[in-house]
Amino acid sequence: MPTGIAIIGCGIIGSAVADILLHEGPHLRQRSGQALQLRHVVERDMPKAKAAGVPTRIITDKLEVALADKQTQIVVELMGGLEPARTFVLRALKAGKHVVTANKYLIAVHGKELLAAARRAKRSIAFEASTGGTIPIILAMTKGLLANDISRVVGIVNGTCNYILTQMTQFDQSYAEALAGAQAAGFAEADPSFDVNGTDSSHKIAILAALAFGADIPLDKLEVSGIDTLHDTDLRFAREMGYVCKLLAIAEKVPAGGKSQQISGTSQQSISLRVHPTFVAKDRLIANVNGSFNAISVTGHASGETLYYGRGAGGKPTASAVVADVIDIAIGTYPMLFAQLPALNKRAEVRFIPSSDIISRNYLRITALDVPGVMADITRILGQHGISISAITQHESKAGHPVPVVVMTHEARDGSVASAIGAIDKLKTITAETARIRVLS
Amino acid sequence: MPTGIAIIGCGIIGSAVADILLHEGPHLRQRSGQALQLRHVVERDMPKAKAAGVPTRIITDKLEVALADKQTQIVVELMGGLEPARTFVLRALKAGKHVVTANKYLIAVHGKELLAAARRAKRSIAFEASTGGTIPIILAMTKGLLANDISRVVGIVNGTCNYILTQMTQFDQSYAEALAGAQAAGFAEADPSFDVNGTDSSHKIAILAALAFGADIPLDKLEVSGIDTLHDTDLRFAREMGYVCKLLAIAEKVPAGGKSQQISGTSQQSISLRVHPTFVAKDRLIANVNGSFNAISVTGHASGETLYYGRGAGGKPTASAVVADVIDIAIGTYPMLFAQLPALNKRAEVRFIPSSDIISRNYLRITALDVPGVMADITRILGQHGISISAITQHESKAGHPVPVVVMTHEARDGSVASAIGAIDKLKTITAETARIRVLS
Repeated sequence: MPTGIAIIGCGIIGSAVADILLHEGPHLRQRSGQALQLRHVVERDMPKAKAAGVPTRIITDKLEVALADKQTQIVVELMGGLEPARTFVLRALKAGKHVVTANKYLIAVHGKELLAAARRAKRSIAFEASTGGTIPIILAMTKGLLANDISRVVGIVNGTCNYILTQMTQFDQSYAEALAGAQAAGFAEADPSFDVNGTDSSHKIAILAALAFGADIPLDKLEVSGIDTLHDTDLRFAREMGYVCKLLAIAEKVPAGGKSQQISGTSQQSISLRVHPTFVAKDRLIANVNGSFNAISVTGHASGETLYYGRGAGGKPTASAVVADVIDIAIGTYPMLFAQLPALNKRAEVRFIPSSDIISRNYLRITALDVPGVMADITRILGQHGISISAITQHESKAGHPVPVVVMTHEARDGSVASAIGAIDKLKTITAETARIRVLS
Repeated sequence: MPTGIAIIGCGIIGSAVADILLHEGPHLRQRSGQALQLRHVVERDMPKAKAAGVPTRIITDKLEVALADKQTQIVVELMGGLEPARTFVLRALKAGKHVVTANKYLIAVHGKELLAAARRAKRSIAFEASTGGTIPIILAMTKGLLANDISRVVGIVNGTCNYILTQMTQFDQSYAEALAGAQAAGFAEADPSFDVNGTDSSHKIAILAALAFGADIPLDKLEVSGIDTLHDTDLRFAREMGYVCKLLAIAEKVPAGGKSQQISGTSQQSISLRVHPTFVAKDRLIANVNGSFNAISVTGHASGETLYYGRGAGGKPTASAVVADVIDIAIGTYPMLFAQLPALNKRAEVRFIPSSDIISRNYLRITALDVPGVMADITRILGQHGISISAITQHESKAGHPVPVVVMTHEARDGSVASAIGAIDKLKTITAETARIRVLS
């Protein structure tokens, strides 16, 4: 008997999943040993589903048709958004179906409720495609790295932002130019806010952090800034100094003292969660992840650093992850894992610390009038806040005109850096807000 | 009841696995939900096992002690080599134990026999640590990428070679200098032959190819050349032209025509398997994998290119993969997968094609006397063999002295390139054998 599948939502991903299930059945069976049968595509817009090549007889606009079908064991939610996706998933679980979803927003916001509902129903919910697109990162976190105490997860998890940053870096484009280009190339939506302001990345790192630390991650613990306020000047300075600017989503364990570093053991640790543009030394592997690709670096106490790379979006790449989940359920392995893995069903309480307590190196671009005493004022304020300077550059300019003073700091407490910037920006000789970007340690 | 484990062999990896099982039990249980108990360490050299911190009461020099213990469900083979490892694994399976091994040589040579023996015994044999060290690449191949028709696997799977090549590239060292440095740094053994001549890489790509293509891979189908004949001149020219030289292990599907490219579908395809130094464009991610790290790129028809990176050797990193396998068996998921996955138990027959039928771009360094007519001879011979030139450079020299003529070819049949080189090297104006390195497409 084949495993019966229903897809909810026949957009880009839904169409790609339907296409694989409808046309590659013999190949899937050859590789996985599983016979999979697409029995329903739940989609209100029937012409859309037809255009995707789905046979009319399996298209329905009623979820209950799929739920009432005893030969359908797996419901694949590919609608996106919170509602009605949440309600549909809860109904599917209640009807005794396993659920597969690619919906990061849903898992980040309602993951706790949905996982509990799956347990109550003695079913499972799989979400490989929710983070990192095609990359089997959930698999690495829930199986491959289980021997490890994970100290840090650092991800480029939004392809739109990485595409824009790559264009800005490689072709000296401004943010506006690069965004327009991304929209023209299909790598950014008409309203790109969720991507460029870091919200989408924050959902994904919340999902990864929950698995890495076996903890519930309330989204309000994340401090998020996006690429929408970046200045191309800073990307140029980054390059001059041997760095690349990336939007990184970071989840890491920080010991009581607040120093952000790779550590093992679990005593007296807090979790720091954040999304922000970050300078990355150009010889680090993750600095070389370009275009719309995603990559996630995971550091464990035994494994050391590992990294996973691939397409973070798109119909077929995402469908690859969705179908892998479907097969994992059909074989029976995922439900067995789901029932037993603490990160999926018995999460610990953890403490979170605010970014102000994190210690990191910083890039500062201070816009100052080129008049006597400015450098003295800047260095004095930094010193008063306990921030030591690893490099400082002021390019030549016409006297009396503002010039950028670029400062690279040694490791310093985030809160102190923010205070110092506040004090610097109050100087009469400072003509614009200081730009500040953290450096990946 | 905890899952009982016996380790055979208490060397670098065995010690690291024992250390995790002995001292991190509560953490492992917290993360995996599994109670694991190290019950036996089978090691002839008792002082070695004691020095690794293993309690005397669980050290034995008799495998039968571990096999007779009904509370031991998993035997972890970490002796290395073919015998007695093979015999011990067969005995463990026969005694009803699941087996975990990090032994790439054993799996590459005797994998077919051992997998069959495991099936007969209704047990499983797991080998995540055999390839790519800590990287969960077997997991990606047997689960994460199952929806894909995999067209190509390209790996840096020998850390010794990659360390040596990185030193040669970044610090202009000769091969001999870099090898000596690798030995001093503990990245190369006293007798490094198996690593530097490509044999170790060939074992690992054979294991990956078997999973990627669901096929038995006889080792004699591999064409292998190592880094031991590389000249530092070629690494310098690589850099000048925007390439990095890497020892790559490559397994790919090639359509009937022989053109090596990314393709889907399974009609009329053959498999090409090879290990050789390769020029990689420096902006490719795998070109930026440096030092003793490993990385494996896997291309699927739906996923596109994905890449997995991490430490390819070392006690703790390898132990991370070994313990992940142990947990996978303890949960019950791996035995369930093992019983059902065709790539692990019902492999297809495939055809192999020799390298001579592969089509790729090439770098040639021809050592010629700087006399009239040499360039004409070289270009004529290349043309006669149907090889077109994409770039050619001859640096200035004193007349009458040999100079390197560097040729980059367009795509050409490997066999034709070999014939052309044969003809060129017969010219009286050619003073040394032509160096030839393929370029990754």
